[in-house]
Amino acid sequence: MATKNNSSNPALQTVVPEVVIQRLPLYVRVLSQFSNSGHDVISSEQLGQQLQMTPAQIRKDLSYFGRFGKQGRGYDIAMLERQLRTILGLDRTWNVAVIGMGRLGRAVVSYPGFAPEGFKIVSAFDSDDKIIGMDVSGLVVQSTASLAATVKKLDIKIGIVTVPIAHAQSVIDSLVKAGIKSILNYAPLSPQVPSGVMVRGVDPVLSLQSMTYYIR
Amino acid sequence: MATKNNSSNPALQTVVPEVVIQRLPLYVRVLSQFSNSGHDVISSEQLGQQLQMTPAQIRKDLSYFGRFGKQGRGYDIAMLERQLRTILGLDRTWNVAVIGMGRLGRAVVSYPGFAPEGFKIVSAFDSDDKIIGMDVSGLVVQSTASLAATVKKLDIKIGIVTVPIAHAQSVIDSLVKAGIKSILNYAPLSPQVPSGVMVRGVDPVLSLQSMTYYIR
Repeated sequence: MATKNNSSNPALQTVVPEVVIQRLPLYVRVLSQFSNSGHDVISSEQLGQQLQMTPAQIRKDLSYFGRFGKQGRGYDIAMLERQLRTILGLDRTWNVAVIGMGRLGRAVVSYPGFAPEGFKIVSAFDSDDKIIGMDVSGLVVQSTASLAATVKKLDIKIGIVTVPIAHAQSVIDSLVKAGIKSILNYAPLSPQVPSGVMVRGVDPVLSLQSMTYYIR
Repeated sequence: MATKNNSSNPALQTVVPEVVIQRLPLYVRVLSQFSNSGHDVISSEQLGQQLQMTPAQIRKDLSYFGRFGKQGRGYDIAMLERQLRTILGLDRTWNVAVIGMGRLGRAVVSYPGFAPEGFKIVSAFDSDDKIIGMDVSGLVVQSTASLAATVKKLDIKIGIVTVPIAHAQSVIDSLVKAGIKSILNYAPLSPQVPSGVMVRGVDPVLSLQSMTYYIR
């Protein structure tokens, strides 16, 4: 997964390695699954088994954020999940814009997994006159020319880029110019962004390419 | 990104950390971009700048695989790209099956980024009688009941799972039973797989959830 991290908060990064931050959502997911199946307490062994990590690694990751568990008793699932959600900023709703309403962009806008997790797609953009004005899952596609104004008006904090590779860097530049600091990029390139802007890539090809190493 | 690694080759993993393997496709991409723009040689500084890594980290990553560069001269782009592709198993074609022909699955099958990188989607599956038999980007959707036979017949080595979360674990079980050892999973869960099977997750929600930490 292509990940760029030029976070605006170097102090936090020094304290908590980014790889730990990237694992926390997995913890939240497993805690939620255990909670839904009626468990109250989970051990670092159980967490480790779910996540293919050692119990020691789990305890070390969580130790960055204070003491969550009691020796020999395990973690209170509800409390740990709530605290991790607060740490990750998942205790609120984030407004999201998706740019690029081709097949991929339309699939992203209609994906039911974002809203329950607090990511609310509030606007959709394209630069093609034939697509602007279309309805995509209840959103009227806007012209990318109105991006900056809409980002400001709707307090959009996250941009999802689903345009073809040839347009991705310029769309990302526009998002940055509009004040967006968190970008999820589906285009298969490593975009250049200024310090203080974070880009994560969703790129199935990169994932496949690092698996073939093990089966080649 | 949810990543599970129960590789069948622990010796290789001991030698090369998985995080290094996961970065190699990014190297290949940047080398290819530089090559396409007419460059012959690249320094670890230039590579590092593109990938937001230090030159020392680049040199350390590559040192796992031998000596590629000459001190003070940089890397021969064409040679390094070719060698990394061989290391990653990207010097051949891999046959791929996609299971789940809802909106996401259809977007995956029609995504133009797989084939040029050697990932050939040769069959598409669904369990819904209304979808079986449909044409999706030139493939006739087959019943998941014929998964094992088709995997064998077409020498499929990679499965891409695009079914809803409720069916993901059982579809992954079927893939494993059919002999697939590399699975790309789009469903938002951490599936359990036996040792020797590798699952990588493509999960935009997890990526978003670890970015909000920095902007919360």
